[in-house]
Amino acid sequence: MKTIRILVTGGTFDKEYDELTGRLFFRDTHLPDMLARGRCRLAVAIETVMMVDSLELDDHGRGRIVERARGCEESAIVVTHGTDTMVQTGRVLAGAALEGKTIVLTGAMVPYAFGSSDGLFNLGSALSFVQVLPPGVYVAMNGQHFPWNAVRKNTATGFFESVDPI
Amino acid sequence: MKTIRILVTGGTFDKEYDELTGRLFFRDTHLPDMLARGRCRLAVAIETVMMVDSLELDDHGRGRIVERARGCEESAIVVTHGTDTMVQTGRVLAGAALEGKTIVLTGAMVPYAFGSSDGLFNLGSALSFVQVLPPGVYVAMNGQHFPWNAVRKNTATGFFESVDPI
Amino acid sequence: MKTIRILVTGGTFDKEYDELTGRLFFRDTHLPDMLARGRCRLAVAIETVMMVDSLELDDHGRGRIVERARGCEESAIVVTHGTDTMVQTGRVLAGAALEGKTIVLTGAMVPYAFGSSDGLFNLGSALSFVQVLPPGVYVAMNGQHFPWNAVRKNTATGFFESVDPI
Amino acid sequence: MKTIRILVTGGTFDKEYDELTGRLFFRDTHLPDMLARGRCRLAVAIETVMMVDSLELDDHGRGRIVERARGCEESAIVVTHGTDTMVQTGRVLAGAALEGKTIVLTGAMVPYAFGSSDGLFNLGSALSFVQVLPPGVYVAMNGQHFPWNAVRKNTATGFFESVDPI
Repeated sequence: MKTIRILVTGGTFDKEYDELTGRLFFRDTHLPDMLARGRCRLAVAIETVMMVDSLELDDHGRGRIVERARGCEESAIVVTHGTDTMVQTGRVLAGAALEGKTIVLTGAMVPYAFGSSDGLFNLGSALSFVQVLPPGVYVAMNGQHFPWNAVRKNTATGFFESVDPI
Repeated sequence: MKTIRILVTGGTFDKEYDELTGRLFFRDTHLPDMLARGRCRLAVAIETVMMVDSLELDDHGRGRIVERARGCEESAIVVTHGTDTMVQTGRVLAGAALEGKTIVLTGAMVPYAFGSSDGLFNLGSALSFVQVLPPGVYVAMNGQHFPWNAVRKNTATGFFESVDPI
Repeated sequence: MKTIRILVTGGTFDKEYDELTGRLFFRDTHLPDMLARGRCRLAVAIETVMMVDSLELDDHGRGRIVERARGCEESAIVVTHGTDTMVQTGRVLAGAALEGKTIVLTGAMVPYAFGSSDGLFNLGSALSFVQVLPPGVYVAMNGQHFPWNAVRKNTATGFFESVDPI
Repeated sequence: MKTIRILVTGGTFDKEYDELTGRLFFRDTHLPDMLARGRCRLAVAIETVMMVDSLELDDHGRGRIVERARGCEESAIVVTHGTDTMVQTGRVLAGAALEGKTIVLTGAMVPYAFGSSDGLFNLGSALSFVQVLPPGVYVAMNGQHFPWNAVRKNTATGFFESVDPI
């Protein structure tokens, strides 16, 4: 079985509730818990690149994600990412021309820790798409997959939708 | 967007706890709730074929599943199914030679209603595989997909594993 | 059975996650859901006085709570309230000298909607104390009950603790 | 603060789902988890007397519960118990004439592990009643408390209701 690299970058996926301040914050990634709940038996290598809200991601941060995607030996890569700038990171990853690699970005609209999250569904979806899609950079959200350059997040609805390729 | 047919047959996926008797039972399928939680935006047609524990499925029951898979106009079909006899149903579906149809069987080891279920992960996975795999009959469990004739449920561990094709 | 008045004022108890903005907000109270989950069979009259973070409560707001506590015919009253200024509201309620009424303030450190909330435990506790404590104003948190004038929230730990009566 | 003894006897409270057999079973008690979720700060001493479905409790088993209630030094005792024979155990405890002890039996209709349980509400309720009720044997369910000899479980509804004292 081919190992899948999971690059964790934070996003709503991994946010938690701080009961003392009433704010959302990051601690450790929930990916291992999520994979255990999903009874996942894939060979995965989880790597936390950063833990940030994707609105705070800048060129430097995206550079680090590209670097890790290029540096890892796996050709199947899932990137967990905040939804707000998932497409921007997709563009940067595509621009890096990582030959032979299938990269799927996914995230969540509701934190996994809150019980009612879409995260587990999206993770199951992203891990499945990454095994069967040809090399390229994709976004997997709402049960669908999109090429990075033919999708946008509709900020009014929170759903991802197809657009004409850039 | 191509519509995906979801054939519901019951299984652990859909079991609930009867607080009066302390027994597990079936009421309605949780599929619509699960798709809502997953914020799924696929075009799906959900059809409840039966609500049974897959240990109780016989040839007649499997015949009804085949009939519905043949009769529906969709070429992408997800069958939610108890895990114990998922492979047997896969064999019958494969034997029916439904040309041009991609059929993915999936299920859960823990009822969705119990909070800690693998069901949402598996559903995300099955709905993703069914969009991209070539025609054939598959089992999607534990984040993996298997041809129906190269998989078994390991009843000691509860995990599905590859075997030499029949 | 004596009816218990539940005055809802908001607080963490009732906060929800807005998946579009990533912020916490108020919509409707979760009290009916919580009572249903607790399989509560008490006679209760639920009244939403306001839905605010208790840090935003001012004299005017506290006046409205007092007014409702005085105006209702029940002599057993539970007030759901943000934890930050629960004691201040207790002081105002005590100052209003509502003869013959047992008033219990309670709240939560984690929103009920987040699954891992202390809210259901606290609600069970407050509804129990209010049935058996003599008239007066109390805070019920962490499984304990305190006279309003002998308790403070330890903001470093988030726990309520006894202090010498004012 | 006076320590409260919690005698664990099993019941639906503590049942779990065995994902391999699809059956409910007992492992360890969830009491510590429940107290942590409730952010409980009471001094408690948890003791697992047995882990059984209360339909399987016989005179010998009830004798062991009485023995532990008599033997412990605490005068406030909560007994977690299956709902089906809670009243019978109450009768035996009352017959043992444990002078000066307040004993509250409680339980759940839905296992705590299933997410939608009434257990946390009932535990908050029982721990509150036990602190303020006079010595005697009580059942705390559905937000109410009943003397052991004036209550029955309505097996058609699953709710506890008052009856004329025996």
